[in-house]
Amino acid sequence: MIELPKDHIPVFVLVRPQLGENIGKAARAMLNFGLAEMRLVVPRDGWPNPSAGPAASGADIVLENAQIFETTAEAVADCAHVYATTVRKRGVTKPVVTPAQASQEIVSQQGRSAILFGPERSGLETDDVALARKILTVPINPEFSSLNLAQAVILCAYEWSRHQHLVQPTQEDVLPPAPQEDLDGLIRHFERLLESKGYFFPETRTDATKRTLRGILTRPGWNHLEVRTLRGILSSLSRPSRDRTEG
Amino acid sequence: MIELPKDHIPVFVLVRPQLGENIGKAARAMLNFGLAEMRLVVPRDGWPNPSAGPAASGADIVLENAQIFETTAEAVADCAHVYATTVRKRGVTKPVVTPAQASQEIVSQQGRSAILFGPERSGLETDDVALARKILTVPINPEFSSLNLAQAVILCAYEWSRHQHLVQPTQEDVLPPAPQEDLDGLIRHFERLLESKGYFFPETRTDATKRTLRGILTRPGWNHLEVRTLRGILSSLSRPSRDRTEG
Repeated sequence: MIELPKDHIPVFVLVRPQLGENIGKAARAMLNFGLAEMRLVVPRDGWPNPSAGPAASGADIVLENAQIFETTAEAVADCAHVYATTVRKRGVTKPVVTPAQASQEIVSQQGRSAILFGPERSGLETDDVALARKILTVPINPEFSSLNLAQAVILCAYEWSRHQHLVQPTQEDVLPPAPQEDLDGLIRHFERLLESKGYFFPETRTDATKRTLRGILTRPGWNHLEVRTLRGILSSLSRPSRDRTEG
Repeated sequence: MIELPKDHIPVFVLVRPQLGENIGKAARAMLNFGLAEMRLVVPRDGWPNPSAGPAASGADIVLENAQIFETTAEAVADCAHVYATTVRKRGVTKPVVTPAQASQEIVSQQGRSAILFGPERSGLETDDVALARKILTVPINPEFSSLNLAQAVILCAYEWSRHQHLVQPTQEDVLPPAPQEDLDGLIRHFERLLESKGYFFPETRTDATKRTLRGILTRPGWNHLEVRTLRGILSSLSRPSRDRTEG
């Protein structure tokens, strides 16, 4: 297999997976299609998990190299493009893409991509989805949608492998989106300033309002220069005015 | 879902499947993508099999309607196009197609199509493969190929659903970008506030800085609700702080 630029190889992030067996199955599904970088956010039963190995059917390398994180945000801190998998739409206002569309993007855009997969029972929580710029949904039988974790993983891995052969050499020379941690810094800066102005009111709406704010700031995919400019703008805005013409 | 001509809906034939659980998983995989016609050739443990139902996770209709045959030849007797799935090519002299190519054919050719899947351990025997006009192979990691029965089934079912064109990918109900005048209002609001803070300095750089700002705010394609939220945020930021914790 030809060496791909790392930017074009997605990271698969299992968020709070429950069963070790399913982590193993996901590893097996990934490696079948040449993907080996798995990240785990607080696996329920700890890590390593003795049930994972047998289910991986030989894909041990994926499990051995799996990285563990305390939060989803940390797991995608170095990623420029975050996709959240959901089977059903849940009132989200983010662009929705198919595995095929996401794969096409992943193999042609700069900056690393991460695909988030939720826990077996419940799927991703709203706060996890909020981190993502796009929703990845497998188009499925509306009368019977019952994809399990490993199946969602294998479909995404399969689609990615289909698209890696289609990689166009033409590089966009647009800067990639800033790493997720830069974006988080910007969002926290906004929140800090707005808190001081009493923006988050009433308190019961604070979480929802913060999600809205995060959504608005996540969508653009600003690069690190743009994020830096915006940080400068916020710092400016928090300084006392020079005169009274504002507003 | 719109009714498809029956010719374009493949029959999935499990040849001598060993575990009832895998038959159930295959049924579940199929129904996720709208496929319900399963045929079984001499399932090892007889039929019905009590392990199949639980593994089907609700796809009982597929199991209930499954037809049983004594030979693979009988199972595909009414089919015009037979595909034999194998992971590896095995010195066969038949055309080899990917799931995508097979699906494209299935949805466009006349006469029913069948896809044969072999027993879990051994795969299809030479005599079964001999019945097929083409070999269907999932392109896979040459250094780790470990697809199980249900995974092969789900990849074929998924590809078929992609090609039938009737399953629409989930529609984006994302709002369109706000009209340009709303965006201009936002940009002017930013400029006004920033001018009052002495942000545009030195004066010779003002035009370039404003262009940068416009670029950053134009890229996102925010909708009118998002623009309105941002206007509210700017108004908040221009109010005096309630305390000194800002910054």
